[in-house]
Amino acid sequence: MTLDRAFSVRVPEGDAMPRKVCDHCGFVAYENPKIVVGSVVRSEGRILLCRRAIEPRRGYWTIPAGYMELNETPEEGAMREAREEAGASIAIERLLAIYSVPRISQVQLIFRAELSDPAVEAGVETLELRFFAWDEIPWDDLAFPSVHWALNHERAAEGGAPPVPFGNPEGAAGDRMPDGRPLPVGDF
Amino acid sequence: MTLDRAFSVRVPEGDAMPRKVCDHCGFVAYENPKIVVGSVVRSEGRILLCRRAIEPRRGYWTIPAGYMELNETPEEGAMREAREEAGASIAIERLLAIYSVPRISQVQLIFRAELSDPAVEAGVETLELRFFAWDEIPWDDLAFPSVHWALNHERAAEGGAPPVPFGNPEGAAGDRMPDGRPLPVGDF
Repeated sequence: MTLDRAFSVRVPEGDAMPRKVCDHCGFVAYENPKIVVGSVVRSEGRILLCRRAIEPRRGYWTIPAGYMELNETPEEGAMREAREEAGASIAIERLLAIYSVPRISQVQLIFRAELSDPAVEAGVETLELRFFAWDEIPWDDLAFPSVHWALNHERAAEGGAPPVPFGNPEGAAGDRMPDGRPLPVGDF
Repeated sequence: MTLDRAFSVRVPEGDAMPRKVCDHCGFVAYENPKIVVGSVVRSEGRILLCRRAIEPRRGYWTIPAGYMELNETPEEGAMREAREEAGASIAIERLLAIYSVPRISQVQLIFRAELSDPAVEAGVETLELRFFAWDEIPWDDLAFPSVHWALNHERAAEGGAPPVPFGNPEGAAGDRMPDGRPLPVGDF
């Protein structure tokens, strides 16, 4: 197959914004923000993390999360991601946080969850799974700023914070790790 | 321009799900759920509603809301929609509700807001604007189930409900109006 696509940027009829339109077939490639759904999964007081087998951030630790798919609810998506990435069956408790990363046009819906079956197994996007106690969390090797945020917010929720979902930490847009390290540019 | 696009549905290399792939150019049309951002806008105890000038549900009343665009936060998107549809400057207070309509692959983020400037003006997608007291809301002529939900949730919030965002009413997936009337199939 020849990848001879060529998109011009112009405002389609009846629209208000410039969009990418294929010069060959007229297809309008509407691009809108994507929703990431994920969960902080607890089991016997430990937190399930997955070491990423794929770029961006291969080798770094993350929570089970990924792009929401068509015709599912956010909760169903978070359960699917836990199954795909960690072979994990989880029980969703409530929404922990809503994060916004406008640079990469993402809204993340992160749930609190409890593992409902002890059997887990690393999926194809995961090198390794591990359950971490709070004093074992590999803070310096977390994949993304929002993983850092979600773990801190989970700890606050366990400490009795009211059940209002958290948002981005004050002033944080997800452009750098919380310790100031820059992020590789990627679409997560 | 010839609209000769032809998509085959197949699993692209490295993907796990079937996607639409253009037979001509190989473009993968990833489709993911879209985010609708909107607000329930108060002014002197009344609620701002917009009568829709466009299908679906032309002539019916709605809150200012629409698809979130790239590189904006949900709050910025809700402010943009209020400006575009009602010429309204608003101050966002907090997240009122998160609704999920999996049939049409939407997640809606609806904020509570206060009008910050009395000047409003119907945009091109709006036939008419009006501020309604609670006993004037045109319940039978609301455009979508989620407008109904958001207004009821705003009323509950004004009545002192805790600041936890609401979700879909129990058992409701947005397939019908709350009085049981079917919805025309549309992408909102």
